[in-house]
Amino acid sequence: MQILKPSYAAGVDLGGTTITTVLVNETGRLLSQTKCLTEASLGVDTVVNKIVNSIKEVCGQAHIETDQLTAVGIGSPGPLSTKTGIVIDAPNLNNWVNVPLRDLVQKHFKTNVFLDNDANAAAYGEFWVGAGKGIDNLMVITLGTGIGGGMFIDGKLYRGPDDTSGEIGHIPILLNGPLCNCGNRGCLETLASATGLVNRAIHSLRFGVSSLMMDFCEKDLNKLTAKMVHEAALKGDKLAIELLRETGFYIGIAAAGIVNLLNPEMIIIFGGLSGAGEFLFAPIREEIKKRAFPTPAARVKVVPAILGNNAGAIGAAGIALMEFPPQ
Amino acid sequence: MQILKPSYAAGVDLGGTTITTVLVNETGRLLSQTKCLTEASLGVDTVVNKIVNSIKEVCGQAHIETDQLTAVGIGSPGPLSTKTGIVIDAPNLNNWVNVPLRDLVQKHFKTNVFLDNDANAAAYGEFWVGAGKGIDNLMVITLGTGIGGGMFIDGKLYRGPDDTSGEIGHIPILLNGPLCNCGNRGCLETLASATGLVNRAIHSLRFGVSSLMMDFCEKDLNKLTAKMVHEAALKGDKLAIELLRETGFYIGIAAAGIVNLLNPEMIIIFGGLSGAGEFLFAPIREEIKKRAFPTPAARVKVVPAILGNNAGAIGAAGIALMEFPPQ
Repeated sequence: MQILKPSYAAGVDLGGTTITTVLVNETGRLLSQTKCLTEASLGVDTVVNKIVNSIKEVCGQAHIETDQLTAVGIGSPGPLSTKTGIVIDAPNLNNWVNVPLRDLVQKHFKTNVFLDNDANAAAYGEFWVGAGKGIDNLMVITLGTGIGGGMFIDGKLYRGPDDTSGEIGHIPILLNGPLCNCGNRGCLETLASATGLVNRAIHSLRFGVSSLMMDFCEKDLNKLTAKMVHEAALKGDKLAIELLRETGFYIGIAAAGIVNLLNPEMIIIFGGLSGAGEFLFAPIREEIKKRAFPTPAARVKVVPAILGNNAGAIGAAGIALMEFPPQ
Repeated sequence: MQILKPSYAAGVDLGGTTITTVLVNETGRLLSQTKCLTEASLGVDTVVNKIVNSIKEVCGQAHIETDQLTAVGIGSPGPLSTKTGIVIDAPNLNNWVNVPLRDLVQKHFKTNVFLDNDANAAAYGEFWVGAGKGIDNLMVITLGTGIGGGMFIDGKLYRGPDDTSGEIGHIPILLNGPLCNCGNRGCLETLASATGLVNRAIHSLRFGVSSLMMDFCEKDLNKLTAKMVHEAALKGDKLAIELLRETGFYIGIAAAGIVNLLNPEMIIIFGGLSGAGEFLFAPIREEIKKRAFPTPAARVKVVPAILGNNAGAIGAAGIALMEFPPQ
């Protein structure tokens, strides 16, 4: 009888604010984790050292050597190239340009390192051991300051030839809508991201619509957050409820197009806003039911992500194990 | 040395008006073809007999027995199930409901028969031996009385779990646009199909905009066709040129979303309207350039289909050979 050795992988979620690192086994079980501040302004070398040390730390916590790792995965803001391992341009990381992040980390380990974008990493986490476990055709929509996504087609992560697939944030929704930071008007991101939600709230509040949100931000609209909109909605605030409904309406329009185009079994909503519950999910489901064909609309489940802040790091480890499977 | 026997497949394109049947070899080379009227009003049995006879005819023309066929493919209007081979509901075929077309044809042959929808069949033809030959990530948009599509992901036809993927005709474009036959407003199909184009032309002509189109249809707007719009545009008619530009604009908006979502290498425009050339293609490319991210926008080529009316039948044969490969 052959005894299989357990496999380990480290996963790093490199965020604009925080680096989250985990150690998992080959089934995605979380064995250890650590967090530190990114401090990208201190330079690439400092960030690389923090990443390397965090990987050593999660291995140490679990009493294994880094040489025992099967693979190391890093999820980073992009755009980036999974083929070259280079971060092409990352405004969120103090404007990194053409940083060969994979190779800079690789130097410190014998184990293979793989770099993918943060949206794919989070999506992979949910696909591998989260809300999408066992689902082959799956779209993950990430709602944060921006809107991104990850796609799974017939059980495989689909990146596209330029690693740019899944950019659902820039699907056109309102042709004459508000300007988006991509230069166009009415993209999903400018309407339905946390930033878009807050901007719509400020617009209404500046017109004098009465709302609890004014108390929550202490009448300083610069302090208003998406979380405050959600909290006001939970207390029955009509404007806040309408703003979340409208957010779900816009996401639902994009989702309906995706349902007609891709016939996914599941759409997972990931990110801070996914906590807004039925305020957000009911209108998403309503627009899909109204706008998509009955058969794929009946098939698709729209659900919140379940892994929370660890999804990106767990997913980065999972992608690395997919790219460099245990021998 | 092993001598490989040549393989043959028959492909049938079952249309509302015409049945087109071809015989091809394993490389997609066209060996023989035939056409007849569908006459779906004469009943299912009659149509099945016409299909069976057309397959015998293309084999006869090439001096082979039907037993020598490796596979038979049929492309039919849908929705249908590729798994059961049943046409679920086909308004274009005298309202067929739950017709087990695959098995009805299968009875007449020893060779395996495969049923897929007509949009996938045409898309497969272009993917296999047409404009998309050698391209792995590909979207085919079919512009006719409706708008459909076929998708290829990493070199494979993607149907989705319900065989409904690729329904780009019902991506929402104008939230308060004209009513679509699906019950929603402003779907791509209601704006940019041949029917949508003619409806927009009639709208303007009834408001008295002067145009050559009035001469072409002999002042009977019921006789106006998409072809007449194109002919008027070729003669410099301003309204016709603007109507085609607007058609391309709407298709371009949907295409930009697809480029951001799927990062395809190529988008092929198939169907009668694809003959409208730069009147249509220039605005499609312009909207993609304007609305999609630079990298995937620079990647994607937007080109017309090249197989013409045989694409569906050749593609049906190709799908059958993919599903039942030569031994």
